[in-house]
Amino acid sequence: MKQIDVCLSPELLHLFDMRGKVVVVIDILRATSCMTVAMAHGVAGIIPVASLEECMELKAAGYITAAERDGKKAEGFDIGNSPFSYMESYLVGQTIGMTTTNGTTAIARSREAEQIIVGSFLNLTTVAEYLHTLPNDVVLLCSGWKGMANAEDTLYAGALVALLENEYSFATDAPILAKVLYDSAKEDMLTFLSASSHVSRLHNLNITEDIKFCLTPDQYSVIPVLKDGVLVPLTPIETSAN
Amino acid sequence: MKQIDVCLSPELLHLFDMRGKVVVVIDILRATSCMTVAMAHGVAGIIPVASLEECMELKAAGYITAAERDGKKAEGFDIGNSPFSYMESYLVGQTIGMTTTNGTTAIARSREAEQIIVGSFLNLTTVAEYLHTLPNDVVLLCSGWKGMANAEDTLYAGALVALLENEYSFATDAPILAKVLYDSAKEDMLTFLSASSHVSRLHNLNITEDIKFCLTPDQYSVIPVLKDGVLVPLTPIETSAN
Repeated sequence: MKQIDVCLSPELLHLFDMRGKVVVVIDILRATSCMTVAMAHGVAGIIPVASLEECMELKAAGYITAAERDGKKAEGFDIGNSPFSYMESYLVGQTIGMTTTNGTTAIARSREAEQIIVGSFLNLTTVAEYLHTLPNDVVLLCSGWKGMANAEDTLYAGALVALLENEYSFATDAPILAKVLYDSAKEDMLTFLSASSHVSRLHNLNITEDIKFCLTPDQYSVIPVLKDGVLVPLTPIETSAN
Repeated sequence: MKQIDVCLSPELLHLFDMRGKVVVVIDILRATSCMTVAMAHGVAGIIPVASLEECMELKAAGYITAAERDGKKAEGFDIGNSPFSYMESYLVGQTIGMTTTNGTTAIARSREAEQIIVGSFLNLTTVAEYLHTLPNDVVLLCSGWKGMANAEDTLYAGALVALLENEYSFATDAPILAKVLYDSAKEDMLTFLSASSHVSRLHNLNITEDIKFCLTPDQYSVIPVLKDGVLVPLTPIETSAN
């Protein structure tokens, strides 16, 4: 039986052996939601980098760049971290350099994995169906908030665990924790998350519409996948493999 | 308002500023349950050490020693990790050297805190009432399993959060995660935990009676507290302070 595990924070990643695993990187508010939107709206590729400096180098090299720190667009870059910014027609066919507070760091730290894909509520069922076709064990990597576990990423991990639990055994207790959280919150995730620290922080930035959208399941059937350091859409051939 | 936080694993401890905080160390199966039992049954002190080597040095120095690795008594020591072993009359007035897989490491890593106390279901309400009397922020430190979060320690953290939430704000999302887990499991914790990895491991070692006992709330009103590197019972003067 395949195994599933949840890494509650990138700070715990050193405890995982990623070799042979498929990693689903999760940063619901808002990096991996934005990546999903971007691919669905025709962006050709996203280069995830951990630092603002690397992102600035990409800008100097001519890329459109997206940078967020502490919930706000970082100065000097083209796009921030609102999913609606990634629906614009000028981005079609472009490759974007992107750095975010938590999400791109999680990607940088999981390079040993067999494959790295991007998950969000927006492509929830597509991700579950894709994992179903693969023989690999799975690690759901929550980006968290500055090293701490957060509610929204754990919630999404729980939603995936709920869709996959019949096919996978649980490697540790973390999938149980995530699934219990999801079962408690699924009827009204927005209200549930309003008590959480990160969502409070974002509410203060007046991005309630972003949050609502990022919690809406199954808006798209695209999966961003990391290839040679660039996130690109998983092709139809790959998604229908096996 | 005082703040409460939950550290889901000692591997996340470096993210916490422990100065001025009271830390409740949690290793339900079974280190902190054993420590509670020992103090309640007249043990004078417990010296928690991280390694088997340090514990062997204490044995050589004449102490009674307790050592557990991977759920079993380590060879060459006097006592293992069953709470019932700590009820024996020959231990009254003695000081014990103790090392366990996860619990004593958690204590060793939180030395910067203002005060370190030991929590278990066995002294649940007493711990909550004691924290209530203190002005300090609180960190509930789950020992986990080899660096990973585990269900039983998170469950106990959630039980404490449920008792304390009216007086404390949540520092991160981890107290929410813990409380949701507790709310889901509280009606039948043993059945809930039977799905967890650590409890399965322990069931294989035939220690179901230990597990049942460790999940029983409020058997004792003693709190072990760390003083100069030794766990001793909190005195009645301290427990009735303020």
